[in-house]
Amino acid sequence: MTSIIYGIGVGPGDPELLTLKAARLIGEADIIAYPAPEQGESFARHIAASFIKNSHEEFPIRMNIGDGSFPKDEIYDKAASYLLEQNKTGKKCVILCEGDPLFFGSFYYLYERLHDKALVQIVPGVSSLMACAAVSGRPLTFGSHPLHIFPATLPPEELEKGLRQNGCAAIMKIGRHLPKVREILTNIGKAENAYYVEHATLPSGKNMKLSEMTEATAPYFSMILVGQN
Amino acid sequence: MTSIIYGIGVGPGDPELLTLKAARLIGEADIIAYPAPEQGESFARHIAASFIKNSHEEFPIRMNIGDGSFPKDEIYDKAASYLLEQNKTGKKCVILCEGDPLFFGSFYYLYERLHDKALVQIVPGVSSLMACAAVSGRPLTFGSHPLHIFPATLPPEELEKGLRQNGCAAIMKIGRHLPKVREILTNIGKAENAYYVEHATLPSGKNMKLSEMTEATAPYFSMILVGQN
Repeated sequence: MTSIIYGIGVGPGDPELLTLKAARLIGEADIIAYPAPEQGESFARHIAASFIKNSHEEFPIRMNIGDGSFPKDEIYDKAASYLLEQNKTGKKCVILCEGDPLFFGSFYYLYERLHDKALVQIVPGVSSLMACAAVSGRPLTFGSHPLHIFPATLPPEELEKGLRQNGCAAIMKIGRHLPKVREILTNIGKAENAYYVEHATLPSGKNMKLSEMTEATAPYFSMILVGQN
Repeated sequence: MTSIIYGIGVGPGDPELLTLKAARLIGEADIIAYPAPEQGESFARHIAASFIKNSHEEFPIRMNIGDGSFPKDEIYDKAASYLLEQNKTGKKCVILCEGDPLFFGSFYYLYERLHDKALVQIVPGVSSLMACAAVSGRPLTFGSHPLHIFPATLPPEELEKGLRQNGCAAIMKIGRHLPKVREILTNIGKAENAYYVEHATLPSGKNMKLSEMTEATAPYFSMILVGQN
């Protein structure tokens, strides 16, 4: 008799943006797993901290985060086999994911290793995409306009081609790519209709028109929203 | 002394996918507004029903929903002026929105009419986009792949051009456009990697590979996810 392993979106940062289901399942869990940097605090754990009790067993999955490199397969292999072992003994495991588990997250690499060996359910969360729109007070998209979402890491030619097309856009994880993104948006005449958001829904959050953002780089958790021209 | 008007995402359907913040603000509200069809029940209200008390004043904003036409300006004008009046008397107003308020929602038409006359805050919600991915067990996107989101109402040439580009895709609100979308995906060789989801997270929910979906049309609340080829 095995129980369910849950992949849980904990939302963009404000702990009150956890769903009722996420809060309940964390409360009921035996083991709480989450991605964590090599050193220091896990952002997913930080968001959910007020729901984690001393009686919970915690399982940080330590890996390179935010430097653009992909964690090694063996990190996921090891984490998956530990979770499967615990699951077989009947322990309830949840895996916390920043934002939503299946939107640019690393959760899928674990899911791939778990879902044919255990019952895995995914609890969707509020994504940073929706959180950035909420603090900006601008629609992500509306009516019949497509929405295109790009990681800022894309090569400039590909990003420019994508941004030139009809519709609204979001460019995620700006970081050190800010000058590149700003230049492209200026060249294609969309800089005036672009809005910059960092750390949406967190106390450290900032948001402003891109034209008012004068820094040379941005944090990893930042986004530029581009409205329909 | 006026209070805040909140636009609140109530998530995709499962009442447990409301955020803690949404549940709290609904509980604290005096007036609960929501979009509703000309006749019958509001889906946003239905999702949040267990949080609405008899002591709440309800304000359904009745309009054509789901037939692709845009409601008349005067419906939004009237609703906005009622909410502003109530807000001036100190009553706490919340506006419920299916999914997320700023992702293809009608909320923005109200927000436009309110935000320079009252303090309006937006509470992001779990979008149907993330809910469909969660029930499908497939990533919306991952790594450095863009994600393109299209309403199924787009003309076929535009939809085909958009779907041909690199990246993952989601086509929303399939409804009577199913044959068109199926034909395009088949023509461009992406039908095998497409997944169909309807009524995600609701008891009536269904999901399957697009190739296994044999009906001629789909409900309005349905989506096709296309993976990276």
